[in-house]
Amino acid sequence: MSIYPEDKPYLLLDIDRCKRNIERIATKAKNSNCKLRPHFKTHQSIEIGRWFREKGVRGITVSSPSMANYFIRDGWNDITIAFPFYPAQLESLQTIEKSASLRLFINDVEHLKLVRNSLKYPFKFYIEIDSGYGRSGIYFKNKNEIRELIDTAEHLDKVDFHGFYIHNGATYACNNRQEIIDGITPSLKVLHELKKEYPGSKISLGDTPSASVLDSFSNFDECTAGNFVFYDWMQVQIGSCTLDDISLYMMLPVAQIKKESAIVKGGAVHCSKDYLLQHGRKNYGQLIQFAKDRSISAMDGYLSSLSQEHGILVDMKKTIGDYVCVAPIHSCLTANLHNFYYTVDERKIEKRILS
Amino acid sequence: MSIYPEDKPYLLLDIDRCKRNIERIATKAKNSNCKLRPHFKTHQSIEIGRWFREKGVRGITVSSPSMANYFIRDGWNDITIAFPFYPAQLESLQTIEKSASLRLFINDVEHLKLVRNSLKYPFKFYIEIDSGYGRSGIYFKNKNEIRELIDTAEHLDKVDFHGFYIHNGATYACNNRQEIIDGITPSLKVLHELKKEYPGSKISLGDTPSASVLDSFSNFDECTAGNFVFYDWMQVQIGSCTLDDISLYMMLPVAQIKKESAIVKGGAVHCSKDYLLQHGRKNYGQLIQFAKDRSISAMDGYLSSLSQEHGILVDMKKTIGDYVCVAPIHSCLTANLHNFYYTVDERKIEKRILS
Repeated sequence: MSIYPEDKPYLLLDIDRCKRNIERIATKAKNSNCKLRPHFKTHQSIEIGRWFREKGVRGITVSSPSMANYFIRDGWNDITIAFPFYPAQLESLQTIEKSASLRLFINDVEHLKLVRNSLKYPFKFYIEIDSGYGRSGIYFKNKNEIRELIDTAEHLDKVDFHGFYIHNGATYACNNRQEIIDGITPSLKVLHELKKEYPGSKISLGDTPSASVLDSFSNFDECTAGNFVFYDWMQVQIGSCTLDDISLYMMLPVAQIKKESAIVKGGAVHCSKDYLLQHGRKNYGQLIQFAKDRSISAMDGYLSSLSQEHGILVDMKKTIGDYVCVAPIHSCLTANLHNFYYTVDERKIEKRILS
Repeated sequence: MSIYPEDKPYLLLDIDRCKRNIERIATKAKNSNCKLRPHFKTHQSIEIGRWFREKGVRGITVSSPSMANYFIRDGWNDITIAFPFYPAQLESLQTIEKSASLRLFINDVEHLKLVRNSLKYPFKFYIEIDSGYGRSGIYFKNKNEIRELIDTAEHLDKVDFHGFYIHNGATYACNNRQEIIDGITPSLKVLHELKKEYPGSKISLGDTPSASVLDSFSNFDECTAGNFVFYDWMQVQIGSCTLDDISLYMMLPVAQIKKESAIVKGGAVHCSKDYLLQHGRKNYGQLIQFAKDRSISAMDGYLSSLSQEHGILVDMKKTIGDYVCVAPIHSCLTANLHNFYYTVDERKIEKRILS
């Protein structure tokens, strides 16, 4: 009997491609003497986490205390919480520090003192640098803020300033390898100047496009990318990977064949509403063929619209069957909407659910 | 001790407003002699379902067999699955029919025969009509397809053709009450012509904007709207409700105050990525004030950008505290991303999670 759900959308995982993605980045990091601290928010699965461990990974990155707790259950004990610290986290951190050494993002002197006074064990902290992307972190030109944090840390016991972290989200808007490299260069320059100013500090990079296209990680000390474990259609378009690297696919039941379209069971609650503008039209998921020999090819057809439960598939040139296989636009968001991964080899892999 | 989660985004529910929303639609339906079969995909909660039962609701609408099973656990036994039937659902339906009478959406003669031959008990079916919205259903001008389905049903035992269903998604693009009324009129005309052609058939309407602004439901036999239980910022802009009708809010921890913005813990995995274009800019969630006396007011400030975990709040004129209260853009998608509702009266209400 098949283990795949018969009547609803599910995620199909190709373990071989997934492990190959892990191996590729792990090898690159190793060869560059760069520490890989992969972000586990993409897969949120203890089993997939173990595939990283097999490649020598010992420290991981997560986005919340509750996600840290999930992985602590499987013995991970060196954990970076890659989201700016805020005081309401303290109670959770007090629990976590009993089982794992903590690395936090702290952008504020008062927060730094608060954490130091509230935690029992030594901890490390990063300063997140905003090199112009405009999300969290300290703007790189605010030298005084950076200086004040590091000076404060020097006079506090238990507190170890670890280094600078950057998430260059701008690379997600690139269209090819060269644009990504050109896009990351100014950020790396900012980090290198900071490293020169604060000798001994580490620099850490978080975006999958950069981690994917740079031939070597010798320009930074740590890599915390995460999306590369699955990749997705967006990463193919950016130039981070090829179609053959995507390891996670949405299997969507076909509900109605219409003249110009097909209605599939697969809406915002199954796919997520991230889209890619292609040729002026929104693409919520690219139709692909996953063949019996496990080769992947792009097919004509894409999800042009999603409501809560319905997806509208258009532009197909071939007849489709009972299910369609669709490459997610942004696998992190898609994976977050599912309880399990179903593998090509008929295995069901557990993952963390909303909590 | 507070029951609210301290360190992560959560949903705050105002039970009084929620019950008022239920009461308003239930009363309107009753006064119009129209059957209310509310869609439960919005709240996905047994407890909230009971508030409908208290108002006399006996039949409900869901979007999948698994959602039907969730509500069957609480004794619901008259269930419409408002998604086009596809053969992979059969096994689940065979289980469900043991506990509940079924209403299905069937758009295809072969499907109709298949269901009839596979189910043990009598069932009803709707023909979903596409009045031009372009999603699922039979295009209203395809008279032969409609005729064939109904003729087939007449010659089959156990099969009862119930009527026509329409989801006029176009009303979601309206800007005021009059536009909604003007938008629904052609769809209602289509349905009334069909009803005339097939005497005894029922007509059923599914969109919250129409259900909200029409003074009476006397023009149709059943209402299956669902979003009205919570409403949201989109419905306020459409003209379906006032701000004071929104009963569900996102409570998001503030992580960093920047010069022109604030970074909140509240990304795509907490809010969903539905947005509203307002003044040419994307709004992913509207800052509101939920006062101690439970009055709601809109504040300057909105979520201008969401990544997986981060939200960027801009245009605030007032100082914000440790948490911000944000009206969701599309409450159905937001609610789907959470495990619980936390009420103003410090209660935790369970809901269905991904499955």
